[in-house]
Amino acid sequence: MDDKKFVKEIQSKEEDYSRWYLDIVKKADLMDYGPVKGTMIIKPYGYAIWEHMQKDLDQKIKDTGHENAYFPLLIPESFLKKEMSHVEGFAPEVAWVTRGGNEELEEPLVIRPTSETIIGDSMSKWIQSYRDLPLLLNQWANVVRWEKVTKPFLRTSEFLWQEGHTAHATYEEAEEETLQMLEVYRTFVEETLAMPVIVGRKTENEKFAGAEHTYSIEGLMSDGKALQAGTSHNLGQNFSKVFDIQFSDKDNKLQYVYTTSWGSSTRMIGGLIMTHSDDRGLKLPPKVAPIQVVIIPILRGDKEMVKNKAQEIAQQLKQLGVRVKVDDREEMTPGWKFNEYEMRGVPIRIELGPKDIEKEQFVMARRDTGEKEFLPLSEIANIPAKLEQIQQDMFNKAKEFMHTHTFEANTIEEMKEQFFKERGFIKSSWCGDIACLDKIKEETGATARNIPFEQREGHGKCVCCGKEASTTVFFARAY
Amino acid sequence: MDDKKFVKEIQSKEEDYSRWYLDIVKKADLMDYGPVKGTMIIKPYGYAIWEHMQKDLDQKIKDTGHENAYFPLLIPESFLKKEMSHVEGFAPEVAWVTRGGNEELEEPLVIRPTSETIIGDSMSKWIQSYRDLPLLLNQWANVVRWEKVTKPFLRTSEFLWQEGHTAHATYEEAEEETLQMLEVYRTFVEETLAMPVIVGRKTENEKFAGAEHTYSIEGLMSDGKALQAGTSHNLGQNFSKVFDIQFSDKDNKLQYVYTTSWGSSTRMIGGLIMTHSDDRGLKLPPKVAPIQVVIIPILRGDKEMVKNKAQEIAQQLKQLGVRVKVDDREEMTPGWKFNEYEMRGVPIRIELGPKDIEKEQFVMARRDTGEKEFLPLSEIANIPAKLEQIQQDMFNKAKEFMHTHTFEANTIEEMKEQFFKERGFIKSSWCGDIACLDKIKEETGATARNIPFEQREGHGKCVCCGKEASTTVFFARAY
Repeated sequence: MDDKKFVKEIQSKEEDYSRWYLDIVKKADLMDYGPVKGTMIIKPYGYAIWEHMQKDLDQKIKDTGHENAYFPLLIPESFLKKEMSHVEGFAPEVAWVTRGGNEELEEPLVIRPTSETIIGDSMSKWIQSYRDLPLLLNQWANVVRWEKVTKPFLRTSEFLWQEGHTAHATYEEAEEETLQMLEVYRTFVEETLAMPVIVGRKTENEKFAGAEHTYSIEGLMSDGKALQAGTSHNLGQNFSKVFDIQFSDKDNKLQYVYTTSWGSSTRMIGGLIMTHSDDRGLKLPPKVAPIQVVIIPILRGDKEMVKNKAQEIAQQLKQLGVRVKVDDREEMTPGWKFNEYEMRGVPIRIELGPKDIEKEQFVMARRDTGEKEFLPLSEIANIPAKLEQIQQDMFNKAKEFMHTHTFEANTIEEMKEQFFKERGFIKSSWCGDIACLDKIKEETGATARNIPFEQREGHGKCVCCGKEASTTVFFARAY
Repeated sequence: MDDKKFVKEIQSKEEDYSRWYLDIVKKADLMDYGPVKGTMIIKPYGYAIWEHMQKDLDQKIKDTGHENAYFPLLIPESFLKKEMSHVEGFAPEVAWVTRGGNEELEEPLVIRPTSETIIGDSMSKWIQSYRDLPLLLNQWANVVRWEKVTKPFLRTSEFLWQEGHTAHATYEEAEEETLQMLEVYRTFVEETLAMPVIVGRKTENEKFAGAEHTYSIEGLMSDGKALQAGTSHNLGQNFSKVFDIQFSDKDNKLQYVYTTSWGSSTRMIGGLIMTHSDDRGLKLPPKVAPIQVVIIPILRGDKEMVKNKAQEIAQQLKQLGVRVKVDDREEMTPGWKFNEYEMRGVPIRIELGPKDIEKEQFVMARRDTGEKEFLPLSEIANIPAKLEQIQQDMFNKAKEFMHTHTFEANTIEEMKEQFFKERGFIKSSWCGDIACLDKIKEETGATARNIPFEQREGHGKCVCCGKEASTTVFFARAY
């Protein structure tokens, strides 16, 4: 008995969301667990999604004037210790290299958890005058954070990411850069990953260790929990002062630069999965789908003729720039294949049998809606437009979900009631006191996701303490 | 005084080759030294070269059916220890992680020096039957080898590379794969980097730790020393036996797979530099040059008109697919700019002044030959053809150098004399005894680079011991 003929089953989303997620990442063949606890292997299909994401985001980063570089993996302990809040934030979760070859190292090294310190050190050497500014760098790299509780893509001991690091002559320019890159992330995540997000500023207790302030984009997963999908930090002069990054300005006066950093990671793959998928498996937005169209010939009658026609259509689609695959293996049934490519989230399936060819038609099935229709073969030319439509529809559907799952609450009791009924974003007013955020977290499990740029008019009372409020905050339970 | 107006000077190649090399990598702005001994920072200009190399080689790897994946950085000590010769080869040069966060690890981890072991472990889980074969994987990653003596790009404690790992049902298929990837490297290095190479098999004492046998491509640097630019290993069943990678064949019998691995790294950038550059700096082959054409407007008379014309030409070149930059900064002299872009190895410089525009002409200077000529503006359309010509000419020139620097020797004395006169490859006959290779190394400093596929007819006597020889070997001092 060929086990490949069994249809893969996954846990239903309603019954056990966490199990459903783990089933999808495994059965859609995105990853496997690594031998060291908390690590993961990104398998070819998962990595191909990452490559499409990288290509798109990398272009956006270059289009905004940044250049890629590569800084060392290993950072001297002394670097990490220079910025106080930075070391407090990261020291508990770094991996330490203490031996090289057969020798104990004089100074232990950390595997980069992020690269502000080592890049700050270089900036201090590379920047002399105002003419060297702005310095706009980015790197694609692996980072290690020794996490206790891990989950594929969402939180792993090692992950892949890009981290941008820039230096500017003024605070205003640094702030402009920070906001510009937040907008790059928003565009990328919404337009390429079809994931709608809330754009805003992190509260003080949630900002990056060492930042003046942090901005984030926050998506809403289909279980009503939030996912931070990208952050952008204005580091002020915190790092330039400890790494001595100075420039002589136009009046020949020495000044400290203002730096920023911003990052997004393979975590976004987790967001992609939890935003769009269902009980049949993954749903991929066409822009990042490694296979955009799968053609499954129904092999009856003149099999060669059907196979040839399938290849012909594939050629036509390739010329239109579509990523297409023909699966004409005879040892698998069409039904098995339908399930397999649904599991893998391929946006469009084309079925083609001898009778279809006779009638000059094909069956097109959309993964996102499940719709199936007969279309004349001339409609193959419209597949690129269909893919664009699917991309847009997936975004709209997720946006609608976010809309219907954004609630308001005026008291902690209302928050709790809402979470008891259904999870989602809760839009509330806040007085500005961190103690209130701590209390909300303790009582409801929700954290302040961010202070959205789109503030309500009139804030009323703080959802926690009832005092006069000045700010609208999005709360949610979060990954 | 603006120090940017000084022309950068580098050490002459004749006087001190090593210093010349270090001057180039720094002054062409390719790299900087990292804070940890032996590490380097790849600066944006150097990284852009790497990106062009990666894009080309990645396509070739995909075109031969391989898929990219990503395996963890950290490998359990026990994995490394499974294959005896592998651990002996790598243990002295690995970095050890012994602490995670605040806890001592139960089992120390090594930062991957190469990934045969961790990928072997996954292969044992992923491969069940003959239908899972061949398994064709590649990864782009950083690796760490704790080197004592380092040199930018050529040997650094951390470097970037791609490593392919495949599994096959038979020895013959594994051998075919090993040779196919060697040929991919040869094509890439010769056609894209314009570096001619000798293709052959490594002698037993120079093979990869854990391989049945290793093939290599070996380039000849302009100082007459050889550089190994890529290796491809047939690992036989050495790793499959220790990692238990078995498949059930068509007769349902369990068999061990045959594996291969092959790698090429940022080291090739060092090879590129030492193959082509001169005392004025870097010379880049057009295919990997981040800037293929630099346009330097001569800003006299109607400056705006000259700048506009330069931009117009740049637009025309961009549409032809050329990577072009206009440097119209007024604070630098044209002379400074000429030097700067020569240092950076830009293949073509276009100079354009008001008089040229009047005469509908431009000056084209080739970096590879130093030739300068006036051409009518209509010739801009031929720049892509010129770039191809330069690519070819650079390869031919290097090939000619290799030809005139490949010598023959019948005795160790002749070898020594040759190295005293001039370095290069020495083609000699060898009896097959490793002791002879050890003696040659001791007496001449040269190692067997490889046993070329193109063997001479009739071998005569061993260059070392004088016994009957069976093999032609290329010897050289090597990086």
